Amino acid sequence: MRQFDAPTILTMGEPSGIGGEITLKAWLAGHDKLSPFCIIDSPARLRNISDSLNLNINVTEIENIEETGKVFKNSLPVLPITLPNHAIPGQLDIINNPAVLSSINQAVHLVQTGQAKAIVTNPIHKKILYQTGFTHPGHTEYLAALADINTEPVMMLASKRLRVIPVTRHISIREAITELTSDLIIGTAITVDKALKHDFGFPNPKIAIAALNPHAGEDGMMGDEEKIHIEPAITVLKNMGLSVAGPLPPDTLFHQRARENYDVVLCMYHDQALIPIKTLDFETAVNVTLGLPFIRTSPDHGTALDIAGKGCANEQSLISALETASDMAANRSKITDA
Amino acid sequence: MRQFDAPTILTMGEPSGIGGEITLKAWLAGHDKLSPFCIIDSPARLRNISDSLNLNINVTEIENIEETGKVFKNSLPVLPITLPNHAIPGQLDIINNPAVLSSINQAVHLVQTGQAKAIVTNPIHKKILYQTGFTHPGHTEYLAALADINTEPVMMLASKRLRVIPVTRHISIREAITELTSDLIIGTAITVDKALKHDFGFPNPKIAIAALNPHAGEDGMMGDEEKIHIEPAITVLKNMGLSVAGPLPPDTLFHQRARENYDVVLCMYHDQALIPIKTLDFETAVNVTLGLPFIRTSPDHGTALDIAGKGCANEQSLISALETASDMAANRSKITDA
Repeated sequence: MRQFDAPTILTMGEPSGIGGEITLKAWLAGHDKLSPFCIIDSPARLRNISDSLNLNINVTEIENIEETGKVFKNSLPVLPITLPNHAIPGQLDIINNPAVLSSINQAVHLVQTGQAKAIVTNPIHKKILYQTGFTHPGHTEYLAALADINTEPVMMLASKRLRVIPVTRHISIREAITELTSDLIIGTAITVDKALKHDFGFPNPKIAIAALNPHAGEDGMMGDEEKIHIEPAITVLKNMGLSVAGPLPPDTLFHQRARENYDVVLCMYHDQALIPIKTLDFETAVNVTLGLPFIRTSPDHGTALDIAGKGCANEQSLISALETASDMAANRSKITDA
Repeated sequence: MRQFDAPTILTMGEPSGIGGEITLKAWLAGHDKLSPFCIIDSPARLRNISDSLNLNINVTEIENIEETGKVFKNSLPVLPITLPNHAIPGQLDIINNPAVLSSINQAVHLVQTGQAKAIVTNPIHKKILYQTGFTHPGHTEYLAALADINTEPVMMLASKRLRVIPVTRHISIREAITELTSDLIIGTAITVDKALKHDFGFPNPKIAIAALNPHAGEDGMMGDEEKIHIEPAITVLKNMGLSVAGPLPPDTLFHQRARENYDVVLCMYHDQALIPIKTLDFETAVNVTLGLPFIRTSPDHGTALDIAGKGCANEQSLISALETASDMAANRSKITDA
């Protein structure tokens, strides 16, 4: 089996969160149309969730990821791990932390050895992991460390209608202004350009670069970061042959007609990227990590401890994450085959 | 005639911009359904535009605004002013500046004396006005000065699906962070609450207040402006009896389900307000000035000198501005009658 025909591997995530519920619901909604996936999880935990929510889903323990395809049509395939404590919805338990990380570690091994075509991760809870020695800023950085790469991975939010990249991420808006540099914009754009070529099927990706300030600074009247950081970065990127445009006024960049002019937008801060995509496609936006040696997507939400176990978690973003991962693998295989 | 049955008065705006074209097109699209309006403008200029764009629209000079209703069904009613120089599309001409201001001054007089029910303004070009001694930061502040009010007017962008208020406006994002205070938020919310009651028919307006930082600062991990400025303002407003909620994470505040929870959002900076509304309703969003003693709306775009005279200007935002002004006047009349 070539890697790109292999199954997608899904991680458990935080076992007291909504990961199990949305995984079961995603299988239920998609087992006749999604590309096969299996999850590294506790079969007992998943059976408990299925029973308590009356989902009536078969959970089948498999020994090898290669069995996924045979099992998937009738049952959710699970590569088993053991949870030392019974996972109670909504109640974090540090005793289960090693299993959370083990699920991720095993998934990375499977994709690095070509046994899985892509990783989709269920949400983890950073604060509880920090209590047992986890030192990475987040999920993505942990994956980057496991992959042993030196460059900074890039976060993309993607839906059917829009792709956005927050160049700065989980910091205050004040810090975002300070951290913005030409080098950061250039490095991000290069990673994005490569990824859109390899994994999204764009031979020459059109990258729109948003301004930081209203009206793109209006010729320096409302801020100078455009002139100091963004314009020089655009000049460098154009000289490298990338198809970039900007700095563009942020408020007129995301309506239907504007979206026809680009394949992706580089945004200067978290909410400049996340406001438009969540306004348009709240349920279906997915998080894609660019710049890793393997394909990784995740649903665009957290562990949602407050609603865990209640049966009301929405599986749509996880389904989109599974679909996006599979589409990316198919695109990458075309590039590899060519 | 009571004021609220009176016509709407429309100003000329910058005569070399798209104001004339969109006014003619708005009349053409709406003369059988819009509440009657007349424009203070040069009839010769409007006839030239109608001829050059083959719009074939009758332009009727009237002596008194009361003639508007009779004329409106068959012809665009115009209260005449004289332009010293022929207005050439796309070419600013300081000789015509006094006429631009005269159109606004006369409109304010008509609405203050009850002869017009509302003002709708076509866009002006601030930079050319500055060359002949105009000292106001913008159109809105000029109207506030003519109205002789002491409080700061508030800008609202409104469409069928969303109403947003940028608490800070046309300044850099760095300055917006600095200018944000509890007092500014409190003063703005009070003006908004009053206006939504009087002019928009909400007996108890539900006001959502956005955070400044991603994830609403995540308990101080990503910025402290929520704790320093926004939370204290919300406490004060709640104690005053206003229906306010926040500070709310900005990225999850504008999708369809979220919008069901409020009537208006107070946003902390320009693009936080303008990105979502222009993403959703680019063509139809209108600018409404709250806190003036009279009703004033305007299309949510500028003079568009680059496309003036070409026939491709879109009249939809002006039509929405005319409709919104008329709806506001109707709501205000119900309150006044009650």
